[in-house]
Parts: sequence; C-alpha cells; structure tokens
Amino acid sequence: MNTLGYAAQSATEPVAPWQFERRDPRPDDVVIEILYCGVCHTDIHMTRNGWGFSTFPMVPGHEIIGRVSSVGEDVRTFKPGDTVGVGTLMDSCRECSSCRAGLEVYCEKYPTPTYGSVDRHDGSPTYGGYSNTIVVSDRFVLRIPEKLDPKSAGPLLCAGITTYSPLRHWKIGPGHKVAVVGLGGLGHLGLKFAKALGAQVTLFTRSASKEEEAKRLGADHVVISTDADQMAAASSRFDYILDTVPTSHDLNPYLATLKLDGTLILVGDLGPLDPPILGVSLMAGRKSIAGSGSGGVPETQEMLDFCAEHGVTCDVEMIQIQDINEAFARVLKSDVKYRFVIDMASLKK
Amino acid sequence: MNTLGYAAQSATEPVAPWQFERRDPRPDDVVIEILYCGVCHTDIHMTRNGWGFSTFPMVPGHEIIGRVSSVGEDVRTFKPGDTVGVGTLMDSCRECSSCRAGLEVYCEKYPTPTYGSVDRHDGSPTYGGYSNTIVVSDRFVLRIPEKLDPKSAGPLLCAGITTYSPLRHWKIGPGHKVAVVGLGGLGHLGLKFAKALGAQVTLFTRSASKEEEAKRLGADHVVISTDADQMAAASSRFDYILDTVPTSHDLNPYLATLKLDGTLILVGDLGPLDPPILGVSLMAGRKSIAGSGSGGVPETQEMLDFCAEHGVTCDVEMIQIQDINEAFARVLKSDVKYRFVIDMASLKK
Repeated sequence: MNTLGYAAQSATEPVAPWQFERRDPRPDDVVIEILYCGVCHTDIHMTRNGWGFSTFPMVPGHEIIGRVSSVGEDVRTFKPGDTVGVGTLMDSCRECSSCRAGLEVYCEKYPTPTYGSVDRHDGSPTYGGYSNTIVVSDRFVLRIPEKLDPKSAGPLLCAGITTYSPLRHWKIGPGHKVAVVGLGGLGHLGLKFAKALGAQVTLFTRSASKEEEAKRLGADHVVISTDADQMAAASSRFDYILDTVPTSHDLNPYLATLKLDGTLILVGDLGPLDPPILGVSLMAGRKSIAGSGSGGVPETQEMLDFCAEHGVTCDVEMIQIQDINEAFARVLKSDVKYRFVIDMASLKK
Repeated sequence: MNTLGYAAQSATEPVAPWQFERRDPRPDDVVIEILYCGVCHTDIHMTRNGWGFSTFPMVPGHEIIGRVSSVGEDVRTFKPGDTVGVGTLMDSCRECSSCRAGLEVYCEKYPTPTYGSVDRHDGSPTYGGYSNTIVVSDRFVLRIPEKLDPKSAGPLLCAGITTYSPLRHWKIGPGHKVAVVGLGGLGHLGLKFAKALGAQVTLFTRSASKEEEAKRLGADHVVISTDADQMAAASSRFDYILDTVPTSHDLNPYLATLKLDGTLILVGDLGPLDPPILGVSLMAGRKSIAGSGSGGVPETQEMLDFCAEHGVTCDVEMIQIQDINEAFARVLKSDVKYRFVIDMASLKK
C-alpha cells in the first residue's frame, strides 16, 4: 500500500519526505492510521548508522500511536476505530521459549524491529512510524487505555517499557531504595515508575539545577554525582540502580553506592562499558550489573494499563514532522523535556 | 608470643625465614599450632604489592590447618588437640548487618584479613599461616571434620569457599547448566562442587589437552574457548558461569553462552574487566555479571561439612617451606595440580 513518510536516504542525509510501498495486509494484520510518533534517541543513531547495521532508505519511529483503519479476517481483538500502539518490535518467531513466555524482545531467533529490518515472512523492508500508516500483526499491537492521552502515550512504548520492565522483573516496590542515573526520556519515566511502584527514589545527576525538577517527577532525594562528598555519603545505600544513560560512562562510582547484593541495571548503553568495571567493584558486596532490553508484548500492555491506573505519563513536547531534523539536534543536546512527539497530522501539510 | 615463619621483607625480596612476635592471646582466642598451609595466588600478589596496599614484613598464608594448643578462658567451642582451620579473615566488626547475618566477608567496616592488615583491637600487624603458630578469635576458627584429610583441607578455606559460596547463594543444583571458566585451584573445585550439588557441568578451557582431566574432576562437557565453532554451538546454553580466571580477559564471548536471565559470576579477577563488556552483551538476554568474594564463617563451616559428606577434596601437591619461592614461580606458570600445600613440619628443619 502506498504510504507517505519521512526517511533518511543515507547515513549522512537529513530525514526528508518519501513516498513508499508497505506490504499488503495479511489475515492477522491490523492497518493503523498513525496519529502520533515519539522521537527516540535510537531513531537518530539508526538513521546515522551508528551501530553499523542500518539499511536505507530508513523510515524511523517505534513509539507509534494510531487508530485502526481496518483489520484482517483472523483479527478478533481489534476493530476499526480502536486507539492502538506499536512499539519497538513488530514480529518475532512466536515459537521459542522466550516468545511462548511473552518475552518477544528476547526471541531466540531475534525479534523483528519495527524499522530497519525485514519482514520475516516475505522479506519486505520494515518501515517505522514517521509515516501516515503502518501494517502490523495483531499480536504486536497494543491497546491504548481510554484514560491515556494518545498524544503523550507513544514514548511509553519504548522509553516506558524499557524502564518499567526491569523494575517489575526485579520486583521493585515498597521497602526498596532505588536510584536512577540520567534524567532524559528514560530517566524521567524511571523516576515516575519507581515512585508509583512504592520505592524510595533517588536521582543521580551531574547538575544541581535538576533537583527541583527531579522532585516534581517523583524523586525523594537527589545525589549530585560530581560531588565527592555526596557520593561518599551515598555509599552502600541502594538496592537497585536503574542506569538510563545512553553513552559510555564510569559505572564504578555508582556500584559503590549499592548495598550488599545490590544490582545496577543497564537500559541505556549498548556499547563498551568503558572505563572498565573493576572486578572488585562487584566482588566487594556481591553486587551485579544486569542488562534489560525493553519488554515483551504482554508486559507492555500491563505497563500501559498501569500508567492509566496510576496517572503515569511521559512529559512530551509536540512537534511537526517538518521540524524533525531540528528535534534530532536538540535531543543530542539533551534539550527536550523529556520526549518529542510528532503530530502526524502535519504530514498532510 | 615468639613465632617462626617465612616472610617477604619487601615487594622485591623472596620469602625467607623470619622470627617475629605475635600478640598475646585474649580470652576469646584460640592458639593454633600450624600443621599445613595452602599457597594461594593472592599470597604471591600480596608479597609483590600487586594491589599497592601491602605492608612489610609480610607473612602470607590464609589456608591454614592446625591443632589447637590452648584456648582463652571464654572459649567454649574448641579445646586443645582439636583439628581446626583459619581462612582469609581473622576478624570483622561483628556488629553490622552483614556480620550479624554471618557474612563477615562483607562486613560494612571491612573485615580483617588474616595477613597484611592490623588487629582491630590493639593495632598489631596480622601475620599469616607461613609460620608455626597463630592466634585467632574463636569466632573465626573453623572445625575440620574428621573425614577430611588435614593435609589437603587448607585450600578449601579460600579456593573452596570462594567457589562454594556463589554456587550456594545462587541456589545452583539439579536442572542447572553451569560452566566453569579456568582450571586452576578455584576452577577444579568449582567443577567438583557444581557436580556434587547436582548441576550439569561444563569446563571452558583454551586447551583441548585438559578435556580428560576436566572429566575426571566432574565436568560433563568441555568447550574449547578458542574454537569459534564450539563457542557458537554453546550459544545461550548456560544458566550460570563461574569465572575463576584471576587475570583480565574478554567476558563478552562467555556472556553469549548464557541463557535468558543467565548470570556470570566473577570470583577470580579483582581488576579492570578489559576489554570492556558491551552493554548489549547484557541487555540482549537480560543477563547479569555478578561478583562474589568468598564467604562468611558459618558458610565456610557448612562447606567443610559438605566436603566431608560428599568426598570433595582439593587436589594438592605437598611442598617444604624451603621450596616456597619455587612454588610461587610454578603457580604463576599454572604449573600445579591444583594447589600447593606447605607441610609446616619443614619449618623445624
């Protein structure tokens, strides 16, 4: 089907209007008119081939909110007019033990990313949400609860589940002291989720100016990570640290603030953990560093329902699609509170 | 009390005979005539000031087996003639939550190492087991079960508890697939303990020549870590990896062999984890790297009793104290199966 979107034609070109063909819907597919799409740091990295495996043209966007326009004959759970979402994945093998457990993000045959990959049935390219429509199998479509504002719900499908999933997996709740490193799209949701789950929440930040803002977002305490006295005072304080920083940074000082048997959970940095972790930072206190890679479909639905019930929302700044390259530049300067969302109505301009 | 031992007088001198004074016994102390002492890699590193905090003269040795020669008036659990052991710690604060939980190795005020430190009551230096006698508070004395041969029991107090403790903490047993990295003093005991606890056990080794030996020690399988095909075939295979290698090495290939939610447990390498771990090695599969630093006193006693019950012993090579510097050189070449133990009777020669 003929689709209008914004694409990067190469790793060095800005994102620009592009007409393209999406595959025709199959019996299990939901066709979605896209209303809003969040702007993730990954979109920038992928359009610039930052990990070296990007394919072009690339239509980014995996924080998609839309309205069902039609459904295939096998689809029972969605109908035209429903408000729905699509996150970072649009398919997986559906047969391995991870998929059977609803952990499609950990599919043993690798899940199919919403963009920059190929459909696992017909080999057609996958194109993301910076576009007016998308075709996705019903298993990977999320229901957006009525209580959630569709404008700000998109980032929950990536930044939201990426922070919610580890907090739930490690059963974080009342009685736990949790620290969040980094106050961006992920970090600000990490604060809100940890607080909503009942934990005592601290933000690590390099900037004292963020203290008031952090407390508005749910932090009980703020530790300035560049202040040696504050870091020393935080020694052995936390049960868990949720580290949302997307770039390389020294984890050893944060490990020192974990209690015995504490765990630092990485959700932001895919690259080398450099400067290196010291073995003794883990051995002294039987500590762990874990990674978590967003969540599966059932847990993403649970997260959306949790947000509706507990009033957790992403703080967003709405933009027009024509402003996307400027938005990319601002994300790279951390100049956004806390996520850009594209109003896809602007695509018709 | 006047004591005879072997000491390093500086970081550049060999270990040599030395007469020194130990503190006088206190009411809670056990005075032990040392019969045997294991040779740990740490002894070499410490006498050469490898971590930069060594103090001299240094009497190494923290795998001590001996016979009680006298006890203080408050000691109820030991009597002269008992066969006992002293491991890596001879004291701790005894009051913090770790100490109250019997996890003295994780004492919040730092435990007192058996050598190279100072007594926390009178500030006198602590001297280790390369000597004819030692004075230790009863809380830090282990009972050696009758079924254990005192000659080979010493290394259990360091190499043994360092591998046993994480296997128990992570509740490793039947149904688990466990891999051990490195076949030295720690690694060979890791194989034996994992097998005795009921796990399916694999050894990672760079050398195909170790296969038969590994199977004798309890390994069900061997994976040659330098063989790319074998490593690829082991992808996503293990629940746990016990990494006993004492020097820097690339953990990323091992992380790839962990299942979803698998954990690699570091017990050997205190230094920088270099080359760096990739964030994605942890995030793809929600994996963890944990550290573990030997164990507390109650668990060390449990380990000794477990060894007696299950016939787990350390493979040792007995040496005379006069051969200690040659033994150090052989340890550094991994030329020992699998632990040297000094017969302290040789000190009288």
